[in-house]
Amino acid sequence: MPEIVPLEWTGDALRILDQTKLPLEQAVVVARTPMDVVNAIKGMQVRGAPAIGVAGAFAIALAVRAVDSSDLLRMRNYLADIGKQVASARPTAVNLKWAVDRVLKVVGQATSVADLRRLVEREATSIQQEDVAANRRLGALGAELLPPDGTVLTHCNAGALATAGYGTAIGVIRAAWEKSHTLKVIATETRPFLQGARLTAWELSQMGIPTHLVVDSAAGSLIARGEISCVVVGADRIAANGDTANKIGTYTLAVVAHENDVPFYVAAPTSTLDMSIATGKAIPIEERPAEEVLRWGDKTIAPKGVGVRNPAFDVTPARYISAIITEKGVVRPPYEEGLKRVMEG
Amino acid sequence: MPEIVPLEWTGDALRILDQTKLPLEQAVVVARTPMDVVNAIKGMQVRGAPAIGVAGAFAIALAVRAVDSSDLLRMRNYLADIGKQVASARPTAVNLKWAVDRVLKVVGQATSVADLRRLVEREATSIQQEDVAANRRLGALGAELLPPDGTVLTHCNAGALATAGYGTAIGVIRAAWEKSHTLKVIATETRPFLQGARLTAWELSQMGIPTHLVVDSAAGSLIARGEISCVVVGADRIAANGDTANKIGTYTLAVVAHENDVPFYVAAPTSTLDMSIATGKAIPIEERPAEEVLRWGDKTIAPKGVGVRNPAFDVTPARYISAIITEKGVVRPPYEEGLKRVMEG
Repeated sequence: MPEIVPLEWTGDALRILDQTKLPLEQAVVVARTPMDVVNAIKGMQVRGAPAIGVAGAFAIALAVRAVDSSDLLRMRNYLADIGKQVASARPTAVNLKWAVDRVLKVVGQATSVADLRRLVEREATSIQQEDVAANRRLGALGAELLPPDGTVLTHCNAGALATAGYGTAIGVIRAAWEKSHTLKVIATETRPFLQGARLTAWELSQMGIPTHLVVDSAAGSLIARGEISCVVVGADRIAANGDTANKIGTYTLAVVAHENDVPFYVAAPTSTLDMSIATGKAIPIEERPAEEVLRWGDKTIAPKGVGVRNPAFDVTPARYISAIITEKGVVRPPYEEGLKRVMEG
Repeated sequence: MPEIVPLEWTGDALRILDQTKLPLEQAVVVARTPMDVVNAIKGMQVRGAPAIGVAGAFAIALAVRAVDSSDLLRMRNYLADIGKQVASARPTAVNLKWAVDRVLKVVGQATSVADLRRLVEREATSIQQEDVAANRRLGALGAELLPPDGTVLTHCNAGALATAGYGTAIGVIRAAWEKSHTLKVIATETRPFLQGARLTAWELSQMGIPTHLVVDSAAGSLIARGEISCVVVGADRIAANGDTANKIGTYTLAVVAHENDVPFYVAAPTSTLDMSIATGKAIPIEERPAEEVLRWGDKTIAPKGVGVRNPAFDVTPARYISAIITEKGVVRPPYEEGLKRVMEG
């Protein structure tokens, strides 16, 4: 099976597998400027917290290439400006800011413009490669938690497409599948953007993992009927106390899993941890355009005059989370201590 | 504002407002045979427990008209057969069987074929009229429970379209709105059939009630944020202990409401009560075609080979329900006694 590569750096462009077109069409957006990347992030052609982090890092690399200057100070100021625009393309996932900050940090170390170009590209490439490695590692750790022949419920897409490759929640599922080939998956379709139906089902079917799709509101009923062994999801930002922002609907699944004594796991690399905020209350929740909810293919489905609330994420309080699976270890409650340990380790 | 009339008996046909086309198109299906009605029920051109009950009753009236016989016994046997086919068009809502049984009961009282025709049509018309009256009554009773200026969350469509008129859950909302015009509503879009986006939003906007639409998985998050005063839904079947079958997703909303101390109300006429079953475990849950989940407008959204689970309903255990609002009174836990009282009263 060919590995899914959502982002490919060519040296002068970032090739972005267009996630708004999948699975019907495998189109590529070629981003040549930082604003091309920002637009692709805002338009969700690339989405998923780790993936937009990597894209953001390469946006800085594109910015370096775009400027023909030998003035290192001017270059640094310009990149800091661009960094702010890139980091604010979407507010909830912390990985975007984390990756941009990491790249901007090496900008400060450069002794010449040529040096700066080399350092920025190397750092962005490192972020990309480290993300794949982190996912493989957390996948292996998380696979230990999964029952060998159970049914795993996952929400949205936390797969290769949402990362630099391999995936977080789907990385865990994939690693478990590779051990015994007996796992089954229930994937929620994930309205309004249908990441589950379009992306997760596509990734899992390419791996040959038996997958059933459900509408989002059916997942709770399957949990109550005893059909789900555990829930595994990704994350967009995890606060110091373990509160986790993830795709809208995650909170609801966690509450229902908790009510039915079904383990609920969050799988995320440590780049998704935001130790600067104490609890999930401080995580900004993006409200996306009404059009995403109102339009069905090329038709508007709702009557005129109806309003829309379209929060793209919600926050799951740590008390509903059985474990947080990172590349540096599986963290169990109490999360304050455990997360601190993996961040320092 | 003109009243929405989902079903209209013309004396020789049942005119069915096609709910698969709303709100883009107000088309009417003219059913002239019982099988026309069965097909409209199976195809969800008419849906909603009380509405399919009324449609089923008129299906028997159409059966009477379709047969040119003066043999009363043959006629009775034929109608009993048709009754079975009509009653099994959809399995979960008990109103369908209830209404067909009620019409077949008067068949037994007829002394001639002419008498039988008159009795059957009269009974079907009574069921229709009584349903509207019951909804108005339960609407008034339920309105007392709603905070005057709160935000009510409703799921699917339990409005005029789901009944003979006025609606159950929406009847409650409407009655509350008419008192002070300060209520707001959050409506879930209700995948896969989008009854919330297409039907509930349409009904509420025609009444001028401020309404916001959300994807199903966003509702829980709004409850957790404290934005919802109470939840009101309809029902397809209520067991003797109060366990309630309703549109898939209802269970999940009830669990999240319970977790957040938000009142969760079920609004239904007593024709939705099934005292013959002790608990919700005995309620058959219809599994609908995979196509409803897989297709998006005229496109298949998911990759080939992916399976689908499409349960159309779920069962909410009585412990999550704050009150059941019927036309004969508001029933509070313990439901065994209270429901028995309203059925006998």
